[in-house]
Amino acid sequence: MLSVQTALNAIWVVLAAGLVLFMEGGFSLLEAGFVRTKNAVNVTMKVFVDLTFGVLAFYLVGVHFLFGRDHAHLIGLGSLIAPGHLPQAAFVLFEIGFAIATASIISGAVAERMKFSAYVVIVVLVCALIYPISAHWVWGQSGWLANLGMEDFAGSAAIHAMGGFMALGFAYTVGPRSQRFNADGSVNVFAPSNIPLASAGAFILCFGWIGFNAGSTLSAFNVLLPSIALNTVLAAAAGGVSAVLLTMTKFKVADPSMTINGVLAGLVAITAGCAYVGHWAAIVIGLAAGVLVVFATGWLDTWKVDDPVGAFAVHGAGGVLGTFCVGLFDTGHGLFTTGSVHLLLVQLLGCLVYAGWGLLTSLVIGLALKRTIGLRVAIDTEEEGLDIVAHGIPAYNELERFTDI
Amino acid sequence: MLSVQTALNAIWVVLAAGLVLFMEGGFSLLEAGFVRTKNAVNVTMKVFVDLTFGVLAFYLVGVHFLFGRDHAHLIGLGSLIAPGHLPQAAFVLFEIGFAIATASIISGAVAERMKFSAYVVIVVLVCALIYPISAHWVWGQSGWLANLGMEDFAGSAAIHAMGGFMALGFAYTVGPRSQRFNADGSVNVFAPSNIPLASAGAFILCFGWIGFNAGSTLSAFNVLLPSIALNTVLAAAAGGVSAVLLTMTKFKVADPSMTINGVLAGLVAITAGCAYVGHWAAIVIGLAAGVLVVFATGWLDTWKVDDPVGAFAVHGAGGVLGTFCVGLFDTGHGLFTTGSVHLLLVQLLGCLVYAGWGLLTSLVIGLALKRTIGLRVAIDTEEEGLDIVAHGIPAYNELERFTDI
Amino acid sequence: MLSVQTALNAIWVVLAAGLVLFMEGGFSLLEAGFVRTKNAVNVTMKVFVDLTFGVLAFYLVGVHFLFGRDHAHLIGLGSLIAPGHLPQAAFVLFEIGFAIATASIISGAVAERMKFSAYVVIVVLVCALIYPISAHWVWGQSGWLANLGMEDFAGSAAIHAMGGFMALGFAYTVGPRSQRFNADGSVNVFAPSNIPLASAGAFILCFGWIGFNAGSTLSAFNVLLPSIALNTVLAAAAGGVSAVLLTMTKFKVADPSMTINGVLAGLVAITAGCAYVGHWAAIVIGLAAGVLVVFATGWLDTWKVDDPVGAFAVHGAGGVLGTFCVGLFDTGHGLFTTGSVHLLLVQLLGCLVYAGWGLLTSLVIGLALKRTIGLRVAIDTEEEGLDIVAHGIPAYNELERFTDI
Repeated sequence: MLSVQTALNAIWVVLAAGLVLFMEGGFSLLEAGFVRTKNAVNVTMKVFVDLTFGVLAFYLVGVHFLFGRDHAHLIGLGSLIAPGHLPQAAFVLFEIGFAIATASIISGAVAERMKFSAYVVIVVLVCALIYPISAHWVWGQSGWLANLGMEDFAGSAAIHAMGGFMALGFAYTVGPRSQRFNADGSVNVFAPSNIPLASAGAFILCFGWIGFNAGSTLSAFNVLLPSIALNTVLAAAAGGVSAVLLTMTKFKVADPSMTINGVLAGLVAITAGCAYVGHWAAIVIGLAAGVLVVFATGWLDTWKVDDPVGAFAVHGAGGVLGTFCVGLFDTGHGLFTTGSVHLLLVQLLGCLVYAGWGLLTSLVIGLALKRTIGLRVAIDTEEEGLDIVAHGIPAYNELERFTDI
Repeated sequence: MLSVQTALNAIWVVLAAGLVLFMEGGFSLLEAGFVRTKNAVNVTMKVFVDLTFGVLAFYLVGVHFLFGRDHAHLIGLGSLIAPGHLPQAAFVLFEIGFAIATASIISGAVAERMKFSAYVVIVVLVCALIYPISAHWVWGQSGWLANLGMEDFAGSAAIHAMGGFMALGFAYTVGPRSQRFNADGSVNVFAPSNIPLASAGAFILCFGWIGFNAGSTLSAFNVLLPSIALNTVLAAAAGGVSAVLLTMTKFKVADPSMTINGVLAGLVAITAGCAYVGHWAAIVIGLAAGVLVVFATGWLDTWKVDDPVGAFAVHGAGGVLGTFCVGLFDTGHGLFTTGSVHLLLVQLLGCLVYAGWGLLTSLVIGLALKRTIGLRVAIDTEEEGLDIVAHGIPAYNELERFTDI
Repeated sequence: MLSVQTALNAIWVVLAAGLVLFMEGGFSLLEAGFVRTKNAVNVTMKVFVDLTFGVLAFYLVGVHFLFGRDHAHLIGLGSLIAPGHLPQAAFVLFEIGFAIATASIISGAVAERMKFSAYVVIVVLVCALIYPISAHWVWGQSGWLANLGMEDFAGSAAIHAMGGFMALGFAYTVGPRSQRFNADGSVNVFAPSNIPLASAGAFILCFGWIGFNAGSTLSAFNVLLPSIALNTVLAAAAGGVSAVLLTMTKFKVADPSMTINGVLAGLVAITAGCAYVGHWAAIVIGLAAGVLVVFATGWLDTWKVDDPVGAFAVHGAGGVLGTFCVGLFDTGHGLFTTGSVHLLLVQLLGCLVYAGWGLLTSLVIGLALKRTIGLRVAIDTEEEGLDIVAHGIPAYNELERFTDI
């Protein structure tokens, strides 16, 4: 029999872990809806890679680098140091969800042209090594960024900025989709294939994010738990509001992709500060994220980097914004609340570290894969779509098909 | 550190709030599946308006009218009076979910022809004013209907009847879709565009409704909590059973739209009484709701009011039925259980009040919008579909589209 | 006021029940995505039959055969014997979810050709009689298999093997879909109609399964609860890994249907042992299930039995495997952990009993229905698709359709 305290923490964290794991379904639908029909199966299968290879890679290897005994404030090794008030299996399950969420950020940015086998390798490396090592710095026992006082409650930096900059690095390394950019510098828009599907994904992500952020308490007794959940929803709402209003002004239509990404950017941005900022600040952070995501999407076009689902704009830009804003709005140490600039500088350093780590590792892995098993499908595969070539089936079959086997 | 009692209540209400907020995803898929393809994005975007503008409007303004200090038993003002055993943020989060559920009822009924901007205004007004004021009467501190003894546990009246009659009023004000009714009085059926999508929405709504009804305990210690959840599921099942059997008899097919709406009507109808009636009564209420929804759908055709998703039949008719049935089946004060007619008369008054308030406010707002920013899109926009005109993209893109920007 | 212990158990089991009931949405999307477009509404409606007729049949009748007072170790009768630490309504709600999950296994296997009315009868019989009687043997008060020491924590045998073999029996009795098998013994593959939809269903099933397995503790205080949840996710991941790798080797593509079914087979297989085996064993069981599901799918082709969604391969084969593996890996009594063969033999007997009971009852009911109301639609109905004939509407309507009524 567990004690009441442990039992309460156990069911809270198990249910929150369930919500976080369900976010994989959200990523799957979001990305399948945002890419072109001919690659919807492929991007879905990539999310299944996260949920399968990613889970085992983190469970068998990565979790020890993150939560093992600290070495030199840089890396964990050996048996896990889990919170004493929580059964270790609940803790590990929750952290599995976090690791594969990081990997899932990448899948959308490299959609429609990355080789499936290369993606499998990337997921294994991200979940076994890249993410756990850097997350140790802020969440592990005695990590160097934690020691400096960096605040990243549920991972605007360690998950989203890191994952978003990895997405950027891989999107750069694999190159843009064929015909995406014209020789004269103009951009061809490939319309999302299925908006209701993408929306379903966004609603699942919103739902799961309550577990993601409030579950990061790892304790049902944390007095901030309900406030974290409320901040999460307020920032999501605000991100959507500013994205809708901005697109109505800028593009003369209420753009669904930007609305969805505005909501998600609000969620990403509040993830670091949900436990540290007030409700008004959560709204301001969300509003800013909804604006930023629209502009950041445009920047990628200027840079000629092709990110089919806006993963960098949502997670990379939104994650940096959110991490930075903790330095402004933290109720105890923020610039706006106390006049002190110290936390802000630490947060800035944290942004640089996680963005830099994500970019560096993705460029190195991307180049290494390019020279070995290959990173990108052949051009005729890309034209035909990865679904038929790599998975033997299109996403939608309206007609009966007969195949003798 | 929260006490065990408060921690348990906090996680229960936060998780229930998550379920209620996830219902927005259910509304989105249900409505996108029920409307024609050319308006599926638009109706999805309306649900995002609920989740964004609606959340902020209720959080910043509406919640005070509902749960502020009572004035004249009519309206709340000022700081919130929240249950003492529950952190205020958890309470507010749960109530946000309720407010935007009310707004979401409207979105389906006005689908395919209402202007997006008009809908934004309506959501803000409903979440900031209309819903909170009337909900105060039965749920606020010392509201006049609560003082009379009205019972509306989770809102068959305050949410569903009110929202359903607002849906009716707006559907009437905005007028039927082009070509919906012929000059000779006959009706053109516009087939739902995507039944599996609508079904997915219905399953999400069923799932979320457990949080909606059982979460309305606002306490994990309420002895009725499990019985409320069971009543909810039994009524949903019964509503589906009677709708399936009725359509098989009446239309010679098991009609999917009616099955879905029968299940939803069962859920709506048990929402008032889930804490007050026995399990047998829950089944009877569900069965009645499944029959009523089929006939109520037909009434709208007779009245020449066009409600593309059956929002009035499900929420308006089902909500009135459920509110009324509490007066019949309440285990302590119902007509059938005690012979006393008092509660039944109070419930009848409550039905009239919420239906009347919903109808009145929607007619007034509808007419006011008609004379100002306009309520309805131009006829050529309606023909082309709102997706392209208001959002720049169709719901489903099977082909690649190139647009130079 | 509930005690803290009872309140905690109540919300745990109510939330877990919600997750289990949400799995119906998963079944619905999975099956609608796996069948051909012309039958997607029909298979969706069958899941609604589970959620409506099935719920009432189990609540009104079946639950007593399962949890009533034992007679001769074979059947329960009369008032329920529920766990003392849990409100009875929470217990019953959770068990409702289990009963209709069993029925839902069948719906996919008989898709695309079974009469809707026959399916309604089958669901009522399964939920009222077949499942409760046999589940009593291992889960009821003093059931004979429980007395022998059989271990089936959340139902690899009592739910999945039983349901999977019923699926096999009904698929055999109703016969293969028209043109599925050629005279020369070759097989025509009917491609799944909607892979993203099927994937969404799989993600919902994964999410719900955490409630299915960990909720089977029926107590938040069970020390194994977090470990059960972790085992569940590890086995799902492992099942997907082995299915992906095997299909990449065998078919030269990473097959999406097999990946989905590999994940589900991992979940099915860990369902019996999730509370009894270690995390390494969970991974091994999952890996084995992912391999088995690919081969079991092939066996059905050899046997000329047509199971459109792979229900037998996932639930039947996976369920037997999982039940058997408890005898190998049980930490206290398994062959590999203790050298004792006793539990393994009991588990083998359990496999035979549940597989046999499922096959026998489905063959008897199938033949009885064939001679009475008929089991299969007419050939022209099958050609046209059941959606139009039995439900009056296709799944997807891209064009406006006008019908005068």
